[in-house]
Amino acid sequence: MSIYLHDIPLPDAKEHLKAALESAGLWCVLGEEIIQLYENAYGRVLSQAIWAKVSSPNYNASAMDGFAVHAENTSGGSPSKPIILAVDSFAKYVDTGDPLPEDCNAVIPIENVESLDKDGMSAKDIRRPEKIRIRAAVTPWTHVRFLGEDIVASQLVLPAGQVLRPEDLGAIAASGHTKIKVSRKPRIAIIPTGTELVPLGGEIKPGNIFEYNSIVMAAQIKIWGGEVTRFPITPDDINLISRQVLKAASNHDLILLNAGSSAGEEDFSAKVVEKLGRLIVHGVAIKPGHPVIIGMIICDTRQVPIIGVPGYPISSELVCKIFVEPLIAKWLGCRPSELPRKHAQLTRKIVSPSGDDEFIQVTVGMVGEKILATPLSRGAGIISTLVRADGFIILSRGIQGVEAGQDVIVHSYRSQADLEFTILAIGSHDITLDLLAQFLSDRNRRLTSANVGSLGGLLALRRGEAHFAGSHLLDPNSGEYNIPYIHKYLPDVPVWVVGFVGREQGLLIEKKNPKGIAGLNDLIRPDIIYVNRQKGAGTRILFDYHLALMGIVPQSITGYKDEEYTHLGVAAAIASGRADCGLGIAAAAQALDLDFIPLFKERYDLIVPKVHAQSELLAPLFDLLRNINFQREVASLPGYDVEPMGNIIVEV
Amino acid sequence: MSIYLHDIPLPDAKEHLKAALESAGLWCVLGEEIIQLYENAYGRVLSQAIWAKVSSPNYNASAMDGFAVHAENTSGGSPSKPIILAVDSFAKYVDTGDPLPEDCNAVIPIENVESLDKDGMSAKDIRRPEKIRIRAAVTPWTHVRFLGEDIVASQLVLPAGQVLRPEDLGAIAASGHTKIKVSRKPRIAIIPTGTELVPLGGEIKPGNIFEYNSIVMAAQIKIWGGEVTRFPITPDDINLISRQVLKAASNHDLILLNAGSSAGEEDFSAKVVEKLGRLIVHGVAIKPGHPVIIGMIICDTRQVPIIGVPGYPISSELVCKIFVEPLIAKWLGCRPSELPRKHAQLTRKIVSPSGDDEFIQVTVGMVGEKILATPLSRGAGIISTLVRADGFIILSRGIQGVEAGQDVIVHSYRSQADLEFTILAIGSHDITLDLLAQFLSDRNRRLTSANVGSLGGLLALRRGEAHFAGSHLLDPNSGEYNIPYIHKYLPDVPVWVVGFVGREQGLLIEKKNPKGIAGLNDLIRPDIIYVNRQKGAGTRILFDYHLALMGIVPQSITGYKDEEYTHLGVAAAIASGRADCGLGIAAAAQALDLDFIPLFKERYDLIVPKVHAQSELLAPLFDLLRNINFQREVASLPGYDVEPMGNIIVEV
Repeated sequence: MSIYLHDIPLPDAKEHLKAALESAGLWCVLGEEIIQLYENAYGRVLSQAIWAKVSSPNYNASAMDGFAVHAENTSGGSPSKPIILAVDSFAKYVDTGDPLPEDCNAVIPIENVESLDKDGMSAKDIRRPEKIRIRAAVTPWTHVRFLGEDIVASQLVLPAGQVLRPEDLGAIAASGHTKIKVSRKPRIAIIPTGTELVPLGGEIKPGNIFEYNSIVMAAQIKIWGGEVTRFPITPDDINLISRQVLKAASNHDLILLNAGSSAGEEDFSAKVVEKLGRLIVHGVAIKPGHPVIIGMIICDTRQVPIIGVPGYPISSELVCKIFVEPLIAKWLGCRPSELPRKHAQLTRKIVSPSGDDEFIQVTVGMVGEKILATPLSRGAGIISTLVRADGFIILSRGIQGVEAGQDVIVHSYRSQADLEFTILAIGSHDITLDLLAQFLSDRNRRLTSANVGSLGGLLALRRGEAHFAGSHLLDPNSGEYNIPYIHKYLPDVPVWVVGFVGREQGLLIEKKNPKGIAGLNDLIRPDIIYVNRQKGAGTRILFDYHLALMGIVPQSITGYKDEEYTHLGVAAAIASGRADCGLGIAAAAQALDLDFIPLFKERYDLIVPKVHAQSELLAPLFDLLRNINFQREVASLPGYDVEPMGNIIVEV
Repeated sequence: MSIYLHDIPLPDAKEHLKAALESAGLWCVLGEEIIQLYENAYGRVLSQAIWAKVSSPNYNASAMDGFAVHAENTSGGSPSKPIILAVDSFAKYVDTGDPLPEDCNAVIPIENVESLDKDGMSAKDIRRPEKIRIRAAVTPWTHVRFLGEDIVASQLVLPAGQVLRPEDLGAIAASGHTKIKVSRKPRIAIIPTGTELVPLGGEIKPGNIFEYNSIVMAAQIKIWGGEVTRFPITPDDINLISRQVLKAASNHDLILLNAGSSAGEEDFSAKVVEKLGRLIVHGVAIKPGHPVIIGMIICDTRQVPIIGVPGYPISSELVCKIFVEPLIAKWLGCRPSELPRKHAQLTRKIVSPSGDDEFIQVTVGMVGEKILATPLSRGAGIISTLVRADGFIILSRGIQGVEAGQDVIVHSYRSQADLEFTILAIGSHDITLDLLAQFLSDRNRRLTSANVGSLGGLLALRRGEAHFAGSHLLDPNSGEYNIPYIHKYLPDVPVWVVGFVGREQGLLIEKKNPKGIAGLNDLIRPDIIYVNRQKGAGTRILFDYHLALMGIVPQSITGYKDEEYTHLGVAAAIASGRADCGLGIAAAAQALDLDFIPLFKERYDLIVPKVHAQSELLAPLFDLLRNINFQREVASLPGYDVEPMGNIIVEV
C-alpha cells in the first residue's frame, strides 16, 4: 500500500484527463437539446449557429410619428413657399413602426407639420387633418427604417458556442426563430465521503465536521452551467463508496468523489477507482490541493470520468476550478470564464515550494493610485480565506518566492468599482472592526482589515499600504498613547489621530478559573501556560510594560513565546485547552465563553493619514464615528467605552 | 393633448423616482425571508449579517496523517539518538482532521516515523505498530490545526448585503448556520402593449413585429435578482391596458409598461398612469430611450411604482439598465453591478446632441497594445447592435462629440481574455465572413468585422486599427487587384496579400425581373432606380470602372447617390421595393430571394500586415484557409470559387 502520492505537473495532469476523454469519445459537446426561446434560455450555450430566417424589420417602416409622403411632392418647399398636401391622397398619418404606405418614400415628423382643416385653419385633431402644410422639402427615405436595417435574412446572428445573454434572445427572436438548439447540460454527481462528516443541522461532536464542500461545489457547477446531484454522505467504507460510485456512473457524465483522495488509512478513493475502472493520475503538483485523483469508471459499456477531490475546502474549490470548470465548458462548447487580471504590488514576502504551482489567495486594495496585494493565510482548511480574498496569484513551478514590493499578477474576483470602494485598515485587531465593517457595508464601503499589530500598522502607513491603522501603543516613558510612536515611525506622514474606543484589557481564563489565577503574578507558576500576542502588538507592548513594572522576567513564563495575532486567537487557544490564560479584551472572553479578570484601561485610536482623512472614500467612516446607533452597538460590547469616539485628538 | 415630451436630465429623473419611493416607504430592502442553506442559495443577498455561531474547527485537530504525541516526550531525539515511543501510551495514530487526543500537543507525519513491531522490526501495518521510532524532536503544536483557526465563534463571517458566492455558503455552514435570512426578491410585472405585436411563433404580416422585449427584460431582471411575470400582449386600448396595470399592481413591486411611452396617437402609457395614479416624469434626456415614464399607481392603500419603457429594443434594454437594475439592487440591499471600464482610442468621429446623455454601443478590439473602440449604428431599433457590441461609451450632456483618435472610456461587456482572442477584420463586406466567424468561433477566436469598403480597410490598416482587411480593389490601369492600391496607400506597412475567394459580381434584381433589366445599359432608363455601394467600396470602384468603359455618365442613373454599405444592404433595398437593381454578389441575391445577372469575376483577398500574419492570434485563420470543410462550405455558396484560398499571393 503506497503512502506517497506521485505528484505530476498540472499541465501533464490536464493532458492525461484530456487524452482519457478523447479516447472515450468524450472530449466534445456531449449533446444538444431543442428549447423554446423564452427568458430562461439566458445562460444556455448555442450548439448551432443562428442564421437569420427573416429580416428585421421585414418591411420599410416609419421611424417617427408623422405623415408619410412621396419626397418628390415636397420639392421646392421652403419657409416662404410652403407646400400644402391633401391628406389621404398625398400624405398619410403613420405611427412609429407602421409600414410605409404604397407610393410613399419619406416621413415628416408631426412636429414639423401644420395640420389644417378644410378651411385652412388649424385642425382640431392634428393627426386627422384635411391637409397639411410643410415648409421644407424632404429627401427620399428620410425617417424610414429600411427592411433589413437591423438583420437581413440569411446573415449570421450568433455563432455556435455563444453563451446567451438577454439581448441575444431578442436578436434570435427578431431573426424569426422561436426554438433554439443548445448544448445539453453536463450531469455531475458529487459524492461526499467521510465517517467524520455530519450533514448541516446535524449534531456535531469533537472530531465531527459539517459537510459543506458538496454545497460549495454544487453552486460552482450550477454557475458553470452543469446540473448536479448531491449524494448523501457515505462513510469511509470501500464497499459503500463503490456502490455509490457505480450508481452515480449509471446516469452522470462526471463523478466528483470528495475527500479520501490522499493516501491515508481511510482514503479509499484511489482504491475505488482502481477497482471500478482505471486510475490515471494520483497526485498533482499544485498547492493547495495536490492529492487529486483522475480516473475513468467503467459502467457497462460506458466510461465515466471521475475526479477525486481533496477534502480541505480551499483545495476542493481550487481543484474544481482547475479541472471541472474547463471540462464543463468543453462539454458545453464554450470558453471557460477567465478572471480579469490586474497588476499589483505585493505587500509581504512569499516563499513557495518550487516543485508546485501554488495558488495564493490575496486581498487587494487601492491606496491612492497604488494597487496592493496582501497574501492571506495559506492553510487549505481555512474557508474564511476564500471569503476574504479579492483574488489569487499563481507562483508557478520553479518559482521559490516573491519579495515584498514586487509586481504580481492578481486574478481578480473584484471589479474595479469594488476596489475603489474598499477601505484598507491595518494594524491592531479589535472586535469592533467587524461591527464597523457591517455598518460601512450599509454605506457602500467595503472594509478589509489586516491584523499585523499596532506597530505593524504604523509601518504599513509609512509604506502607503492602508487608509488607516488601528493602534493602542503605550509609550512606557510618557504613559501617552500612540503619539510618541507616530513621531518616531511616521516622521514624514502627516496624520490625524482619531479617537475610537476606550477598552479594558485583562486576563482571559478558562471558565470558572479552575487554576485559581488572580493576576499577572500567577503567570510564573509552573502549572500555568500563557498564550502571548505577537511582537509589535499593542497588547504585547502593554504586557511587557507591566511585566517590567512588576519585575517579572519573560523567560519565567511558560508559553511566553507562543504567539497569536488576534484577541480571538488568544481566546481560542484558551478555549481549546492549549493555554490557561492570555492578555486580551473582554469581548474576546465573552465570544468564547471564558472568564475575564480586568486589569488595565487603554485607548485605541485610528491613525489616518491626512491625505485620506478628508477623502470621499473615508467620509462614511467619519460619519459613523458620530452615529448614535454605531456608538450604541459598540458600547453594548463588554469592556468598551465610546467616549473618545470621533474626537480628532491631534493632527501630527 | 401634448405632443412633445418634456425631457429632464437623467440625474433629476433618478432623484424624482427616489423621492417618490421614499415618500411611499419603498426606498429600502422590501422584506426578508429565511431560506435553507443549500446550493441554490448562491446569488441571494444576505439581509442580515452572519456572525459565527461556532468556531471552525471546533476542536484542535490533526493536520496530517501520523502519530499524535506530547512534544516533551520527543525532546533530545536526533538521527543518532532516536527515541522510541510505545503506541497507545505515548503515541496514537490519527488521520488528518481527527481530534488531537488528550495529553497530546503535536503530530508527527507518518512518513517521518519508523513503525516497529514488538521485536523492533518493521511493522506489517505501519499504522498499527507496537511502537514508533523517531529521529527528531518536535515542537509543541506542530501539525495541529487549532480550534478557531478558520473561524472563531462570534466573529463577523459576512456582512448584510453580501451577494452569496459558492464559497460564502461554505463559510456560513462552517460557522454553524443552516438557515439564513435573505432579501425577498422583488416581483416585477412586464406588460407588453401594442396592437402591432405578435407573440413569438405567431404569424407576421407587414406592420407586425414579434414581441421579444419582454423576454429580454425578463432575462435582465432575473440576472439582477428579481422575479418576473410576463403579461400577455395587450392591444393599444386604454381600458385594456388600465385593467392589466391594476391587475399587476395588486401583487407586484414594480410594473414595466413596455412601449406606448411616447406621445404618439396610440401611446396610452402616460394617460394610464395619470388615470390610475400619479405621473411624475415623462421624458428623460437620454439617447436612445428618451420617452421614459415614471409614475406611481395607487392600488387600494398601496403605491406601486410604474416605469413606461420605450419600445425600441435598444431603448428598452438601456432604460431597464439605468432605472430598473439600481432599483432592484436597492430593494435587495446590495450594490448594482458595475461594468469594468477600459480606456480605448476612438476610431471614428462621433457627433452627439448636446442636450442628452447619449449611450453609444461600440465594438472593442486590441491591435498590438492599442485598444480601439468603434461606434456601432446608433439606431434605437437595431438589436443586432447590442449583440455585436463589446461595450458602450457615454457622451454626457453638454458634450457635442468626440474626434477620431481621442481617448474614451468604454464600459466593457468583455473580459480582457475575450479581447485578446478577438480578431478585428475591416474593409470590404463579404458574406463568407460570417462563415469564417462561425468556424473561428469553434477555434477559440472571435471575429469582429467592420464594413467600411475595401479602401477604408486599407486606410484602417495604415492606422493600425485591424488585424486584416478584406479587399477587392481593381486597378483600372493594370487590371490588377489590390497590389497597386497597397503600394499607394500602405507604403510603410509590410503586408501579405492572401488569396481568399474568387466571386461573381452582377446585378441583383427583383424576382422574375419585372422591368426586363438585361445589363448595365438599362440603368439609364428613367423607370429604373439603382441602389449603389458607398465610395471606396470595391464594388463601387468596379461599377464606376465599367460605367467609364461603357461611356455611361453616373448622373444619368437614378439612385446613383443612394449608397448602401453591404451586399445584403443592397439586396434588402431591392427586396423592399426601394430600388430596382444594384451591383453585388450572387449570395446576397440568394439570401433575399432575388434574381441575379452575372457580369464580372473578381478576386477578393485578405490583406494581412506581416506583424500579425505570423501571430498566434491569426494562426487559426490561416489553418482555416486550408481546411477542407471550410472550403467546401464556401464553395457551396452561389458564385464563389475557393481556388485562390490560402495562397500567399505576394508579400509587399
